[in-house]
Amino acid sequence: MASGAEPGVLGLVRRGHEERILALLRARGPLSRAEIARLSGLSRSTLSDIVGALQERGAVVTTTAAATGRRAPGRPAELITLNPAAGRTLGMDFGHRRVHVAVADAAQRVAATGTRSYARSTPWARRVRVACALVESFRVDLGPLTGVGVGVTGPVPRGRDGRPGGAAREVAEAVGEHFGVPVAADNNTRLAALAEAARGAGAGSSDLVYVRLSDGVGGGIVADGRLLRGADGTAGEIGHVPVDAAGPPCGCGGRGCLETYASIPAVLDASGGDDLPGALAALEAGDAAARAAFERAGRALGLVLAGVCNTVAPERIVVGGELAAAGGALLGPAEEALRRHALPMVRGDLRLSPAALGPGAGALGAIALVAHDSPLLAGYPFLMAGGTPV
Amino acid sequence: MASGAEPGVLGLVRRGHEERILALLRARGPLSRAEIARLSGLSRSTLSDIVGALQERGAVVTTTAAATGRRAPGRPAELITLNPAAGRTLGMDFGHRRVHVAVADAAQRVAATGTRSYARSTPWARRVRVACALVESFRVDLGPLTGVGVGVTGPVPRGRDGRPGGAAREVAEAVGEHFGVPVAADNNTRLAALAEAARGAGAGSSDLVYVRLSDGVGGGIVADGRLLRGADGTAGEIGHVPVDAAGPPCGCGGRGCLETYASIPAVLDASGGDDLPGALAALEAGDAAARAAFERAGRALGLVLAGVCNTVAPERIVVGGELAAAGGALLGPAEEALRRHALPMVRGDLRLSPAALGPGAGALGAIALVAHDSPLLAGYPFLMAGGTPV
Repeated sequence: MASGAEPGVLGLVRRGHEERILALLRARGPLSRAEIARLSGLSRSTLSDIVGALQERGAVVTTTAAATGRRAPGRPAELITLNPAAGRTLGMDFGHRRVHVAVADAAQRVAATGTRSYARSTPWARRVRVACALVESFRVDLGPLTGVGVGVTGPVPRGRDGRPGGAAREVAEAVGEHFGVPVAADNNTRLAALAEAARGAGAGSSDLVYVRLSDGVGGGIVADGRLLRGADGTAGEIGHVPVDAAGPPCGCGGRGCLETYASIPAVLDASGGDDLPGALAALEAGDAAARAAFERAGRALGLVLAGVCNTVAPERIVVGGELAAAGGALLGPAEEALRRHALPMVRGDLRLSPAALGPGAGALGAIALVAHDSPLLAGYPFLMAGGTPV
Repeated sequence: MASGAEPGVLGLVRRGHEERILALLRARGPLSRAEIARLSGLSRSTLSDIVGALQERGAVVTTTAAATGRRAPGRPAELITLNPAAGRTLGMDFGHRRVHVAVADAAQRVAATGTRSYARSTPWARRVRVACALVESFRVDLGPLTGVGVGVTGPVPRGRDGRPGGAAREVAEAVGEHFGVPVAADNNTRLAALAEAARGAGAGSSDLVYVRLSDGVGGGIVADGRLLRGADGTAGEIGHVPVDAAGPPCGCGGRGCLETYASIPAVLDASGGDDLPGALAALEAGDAAARAAFERAGRALGLVLAGVCNTVAPERIVVGGELAAAGGALLGPAEEALRRHALPMVRGDLRLSPAALGPGAGALGAIALVAHDSPLLAGYPFLMAGGTPV
C-alpha cells in the first residue's frame, strides 16, 4: 500500500503494474520472474522494482520450484508467490441500526462474519466500539492485519485527493486508531453493489445497476466494468432520482425522490403498517392497503430505473434490501413500469434480479475495497492510513 | 488498427500499449527505443512487437537524431516518430436534415469543414452520396486516408463484438465502400459529447453530462474519464428519461420522456410557433406563450438532469443543440429545477454550460472516434473495416 503514496500518474501506473502482477499470481499460482516478465510485458528493471515493493510489504514471497512441486529442469528457479501468511482483511458495514463485520484471509476467503444491533441514535464513536468488540468476540487470530474496509450510511463525498468527508472520515479514523492499519471507506450501499457485481447476483456483468430498498434507498452503478464514483464520490444515489416533481418532500431537501416511495418508511406510511414484517404479513393476507403501497413503491422504482437504464444502459439490474422480500408484489409493477418507460433497445430482456448476498453484502464489499482486489475498483484509489490516503 | 483484431484481454492490453507509445510520441516528439522502453516500462521484446506493428500500418516511422536536430553523442541513434505523412481522417455527422463533414490531418488539426442540407425524408444511401460529394468539393488532397468516423441520428445498438446495427451499419458500409478505408460509427450526439468533453466546453472534466436539445433530445456521459457506452452501446439516451409517467406519448413508445418537453417540436407545439427562429423571436418580443413553452422545457430539463446527476455525479453539465439559443429563458428554469431536485452534495456549484463547438461538434467527435485519439475512448473498440470491427 505504501506504493500508492507515489503521487499522480506515475503512482497510478505503478499501482496498475502491482495489480497486474498480483492478478497473475492469483490466476496462475507461483511464477518465475521470467514468466511474470513475459506475461506482463514489463521490463526486468520495472519488474524488479515492483516485486521488491510487493515483497517489502509482505504481499508476495519467494519460494522454489521444488517447494511448489513444479518440475524444474536445470538450475532451481526462484518463484514468486502470493504470501500465504499475509494478513487478514476486515470489512465493517455500519448501517442505521446494526453493524455487519466479516474477516477474510489473504486469499479473500471469508473466515468469520457477525452482526450486532444498536439504536439508530447511537453516535459513530460508539458504533465503532460495538464493531471492535464484535471482532474480538470472533476469537480468530487476525495475524498481521492488512487493512480494514468500512461502509457507512449516507453519501460519502470526497475530494480529488481521495479523502472522504463527514461520517466516513470520523469512522475511518476511529477504526484506524483501534487497529493501527490503513482504512478504506465508502458508502455502504455502493460497497454492497461492489460485492453483488463482483461475486453476487451481478457476477460477470460489466454494466450493472444495483438498488437497495431499505430504511433509505441507495444504489451503485457498474459501467464498462468499473464501479462509478462520480466527480465527488457520490455517484449512484438512485434513491434521490425524482419520481414526481410535485411528490412528497424528501429528507434530502428535494421532492418526490424515489426514497419517498420505495423505502421501508414510505411503504409503512402508505400501508398504515407498524413495521416491515407486519406489512409483509398484511400483503400475504391480501390486505388491499398493503398491496397498494407495494405497488406504488414498485411503479416508482420501475419509472426511476427506466430513466437510469436509458442513461447508463446496463445489462443487469439487481434489487437488494429488506423491501425486496415483497417479491412480485413490488417487482412485478416495477418491471411493468420499466418496460413502459425504458427504450426498447435499452431494456432488451432486462429483468430485476434479487440480490444474492443478503445483508452481509456491504461488509464483503468493504473487504474487496481494502484489498483493492476487484477490477471494478480501477479508478478507486481510496485507501487511507490515519486519515491520509495511501 | 490490425492489432485491434486480436481478441479478448490480450488484444486490449496490446491496444493499451500502442496507445501509450503513441501518446508518448505525441507528448515528447521523436524518441529512441531505449527512451520509449524507459518511459513506458515495457520490455524490449514487447516494445519491438508493438513498434513493428505501428510501423507496418504507417502510424510511426524511424528517423535519426541528426534529422531531428537532436544532439547525439556517439553512435547515431535511430529515433521513432509519428509519421508526418500518415493519412488524414474524415468525420461525417449525418443529422436529420443536414450532414456536417470535417477533414483532419495526421496531427488532428482540422483542414476543412462543410455542411450540406437534405430533406428529412432522404434515404441513408442518398445522404452518403451528398456527403461524399461535399468532401470532393473541398478540393483537399486526402492523401492516404486513415479512416472515416461517422455519426448517425438515433441510438446505435451494438453487440459484444462491437458491430453496430441499424442505420449506423448501413451508412458505415456505404462510406467504407466509397473510400475503401475502415469506418467507425456511433450515435452523432454521443460524438458531439465526445468532442465537447475532449476539446469543447467540458475540456478537462473527467465527469460530465452532455445533453443536446434539437429535433430530438440526446446526450452523452463521461464518467471517470471515459465516454460511457453501456452494455449494448446505447448509454446516454437522456432524451428518454421520463419527466412525468403520465406525460405526453413519445415516439420511443414511452410516455412523458424529456424529448416530449424539451425538443424543438415540443416547444413549437407548446408555444404555437411555426419554426424555432419564429419562437425565439416571439420569446424576444415578450410573447407569453413562447416564454411559458421555454420555461416548461427548462423545468423538465432540470428535473431530468437532477436525476441524472444524482445517478452519475458529474462535475459539469454541457447543454448543446439549437434550443440552447433560448439562453436564460430555458436555462434559468432548468438550473432552478436542478437546484431543487439534485442532492446538495452532488449539485455543489454545478451550472449549465452552453456547448462550445456548435453544430460541427459531431463531425469533430467522429474524427476523434476514428483516430481513437482521446483517452475518453478507452473501452470503445469501435473501428470497423467493411462491416467488421478491426
